[in-house]
Amino acid sequence: MNSSMKRVLMGPGPSDVDARVLEALSRPTIGHLDPAFIDILNQIRELLKYVFQTKNQMTIAMSGTGSAGMETCVANLIEPGDEMLVCINGVFGNRMADVARRYGATVNTIETEWGRVFEPEQIKQALEKNRVKVVGIVHAETSTGAHQPLEEISKIVHDYGALFLVDTVTSLGGAEVALDQWQIDAAYSGTQKCLSCPPGLSPVSFSERAVEILDKRKTKVQSWYLDLTMIRQYWGSERLYHHTAPVNMNYALFEALKIVKEEGLEKRWQRHQRNHKILKAGLSAMGIRYISQEGHGLPMLNAVAVPPGADDAKCRKQLLEEFSIEIGGGLGALKGKAWRIGLMGSACSESNVMLFLAALEKCLLDQSVTFDKGAGVAAAARAASEL
Amino acid sequence: MNSSMKRVLMGPGPSDVDARVLEALSRPTIGHLDPAFIDILNQIRELLKYVFQTKNQMTIAMSGTGSAGMETCVANLIEPGDEMLVCINGVFGNRMADVARRYGATVNTIETEWGRVFEPEQIKQALEKNRVKVVGIVHAETSTGAHQPLEEISKIVHDYGALFLVDTVTSLGGAEVALDQWQIDAAYSGTQKCLSCPPGLSPVSFSERAVEILDKRKTKVQSWYLDLTMIRQYWGSERLYHHTAPVNMNYALFEALKIVKEEGLEKRWQRHQRNHKILKAGLSAMGIRYISQEGHGLPMLNAVAVPPGADDAKCRKQLLEEFSIEIGGGLGALKGKAWRIGLMGSACSESNVMLFLAALEKCLLDQSVTFDKGAGVAAAARAASEL
Repeated sequence: MNSSMKRVLMGPGPSDVDARVLEALSRPTIGHLDPAFIDILNQIRELLKYVFQTKNQMTIAMSGTGSAGMETCVANLIEPGDEMLVCINGVFGNRMADVARRYGATVNTIETEWGRVFEPEQIKQALEKNRVKVVGIVHAETSTGAHQPLEEISKIVHDYGALFLVDTVTSLGGAEVALDQWQIDAAYSGTQKCLSCPPGLSPVSFSERAVEILDKRKTKVQSWYLDLTMIRQYWGSERLYHHTAPVNMNYALFEALKIVKEEGLEKRWQRHQRNHKILKAGLSAMGIRYISQEGHGLPMLNAVAVPPGADDAKCRKQLLEEFSIEIGGGLGALKGKAWRIGLMGSACSESNVMLFLAALEKCLLDQSVTFDKGAGVAAAARAASEL
Repeated sequence: MNSSMKRVLMGPGPSDVDARVLEALSRPTIGHLDPAFIDILNQIRELLKYVFQTKNQMTIAMSGTGSAGMETCVANLIEPGDEMLVCINGVFGNRMADVARRYGATVNTIETEWGRVFEPEQIKQALEKNRVKVVGIVHAETSTGAHQPLEEISKIVHDYGALFLVDTVTSLGGAEVALDQWQIDAAYSGTQKCLSCPPGLSPVSFSERAVEILDKRKTKVQSWYLDLTMIRQYWGSERLYHHTAPVNMNYALFEALKIVKEEGLEKRWQRHQRNHKILKAGLSAMGIRYISQEGHGLPMLNAVAVPPGADDAKCRKQLLEEFSIEIGGGLGALKGKAWRIGLMGSACSESNVMLFLAALEKCLLDQSVTFDKGAGVAAAARAASEL
């Protein structure tokens, strides 16, 4: 790789990383038990509590990517034989069910069409049939761009005495995530989406209720690496050695979280919402259709149908090679049929939206796809001036 | 943390990271499916094969620290009910047994005194009693500084039809590790020891025999995150999405491995051996005793008994605060009783040895510990001129 290679990262993550974060990443490595590093971990915890909007003391960055965070939550809450309900409307719900089965859970699933969100009534019916220990759902389904409302479902889950586990990998830092207000018991995220830090860590937060469940376990957590009963002694006042924390990745996360705090969560959500609307105006004017249910589209992950006549792989290749823009292809059932256009963190800017629309127009023209030329950029510019 | 803080990392890891590696770490993040990144992964694989001295095609960097590598090997080789023999002579053997039990193995253990290594006969006797699927052992026991010979034991393990699993976390890149010649079936390591890359990745290699065992599994691997049956499709020609690889950490590992290759493995081992001898001459002249069995000390990890009259924690604190030198304290049974002095990768230099001996002398003088003043540095200088 050319060391100066720079992409515009508008896929499903990683997103563009701020120069401040890259600089932090390159600071000299110090020991994982060095008081100066422990101080950084303490500050990371406080900043993660801010972005998760929680007072949860057990709020930490796991030493793996978002999927390790998913596995952490399942591994620590589930004991063999426990019942779990997983809501599936895309790749990541499927993944959660797979993980839960590996940890010995008896998994019930409910499904809804990819792109759609779950209605509270569906969860209620499922819980009426089977009482479960944990209900797992995806807040921001990265494979479909669907934005799942959580507050009402959370009430139902707790009415039935279950714990509420939520995947916030793609939403955290780009849309509201309010663990305490929404009474979410366990949540995990990734660093490489709307936090705009390189991939490698997974923020995880457990409510007091979830910690009680952890304390009452009768069996050891099946994964040693992800065992929070041990890891919390490293993140806690004991600072007991468990594994060697990824020191430089934590420098980067610390800096990325400071940037989020400086911008302010609400302003950050508004920026994501605004640029999403501009992009959507542009794509719609080009006749490109969103996959997610109307009114439930994610701002930071725009999943759209590949327009008729366009070659998926060829378009993405041209975007990458001619414009150095990365967007994502479809996953699972949507392979070859969808584009996933990210507007995450630092990459979520009006100029990136305009650049992308102009570049996409060029790619579609080169493939002789029929659409209203120039309409995309014009509509986006109009939307930008009105928002 | 002061952003310019710099330590001399002479503990059990992380070790000092070369400026080239830190620079690589800070390059702009690109996508984990970007052809330019895939190219880096391919080159990392080739360089890992070089440092592991193997032709194993399944040689990859797992997205976690060394302990995740340990868990990867166990999780993928063990199915519930399988028998495993774990050799314990320190913290990391204990950990391997713990991990294996969590994955449903019936674990037999043999133990030897901390600091000592296992004799082939002990392994033979254990295997005579119980036929097992996997034998696990630690090549470089980071808690005691013991350097375990492997070749003869490997023959015995294979005579009994078992797989040979070896922890090379601390040895890889600092002492000979020859997977193919020694017929090791599965090995894992860490990036933050003798490879002098920040912590966050774990090199893992599986022999063809180990891959066959993986192919014949009847059950899914219990950990989703560490499941090599899926991860190999990302590292293989399919490049199928599993999880988002820690992109920048892989830049760093790539650069660190290039530095190892430039120096050459044998020269690198010799450098570690030479500086170890210089350090040992100095410490011995100060009356400080090694914990590891005579003739089986690790070059890169010098575990010594805290000398009578010295306060462990106070000494390490003074070294850190006055000289910015980090060394490690004792782990497990050796807590408060041992110092672990690392000479790993970039930190393994004659000047670091001299600096450390002088600094230690100052700390011991401040505590009125009785020893032959100036003898340490003088003996080390003499050894250096003779080696």
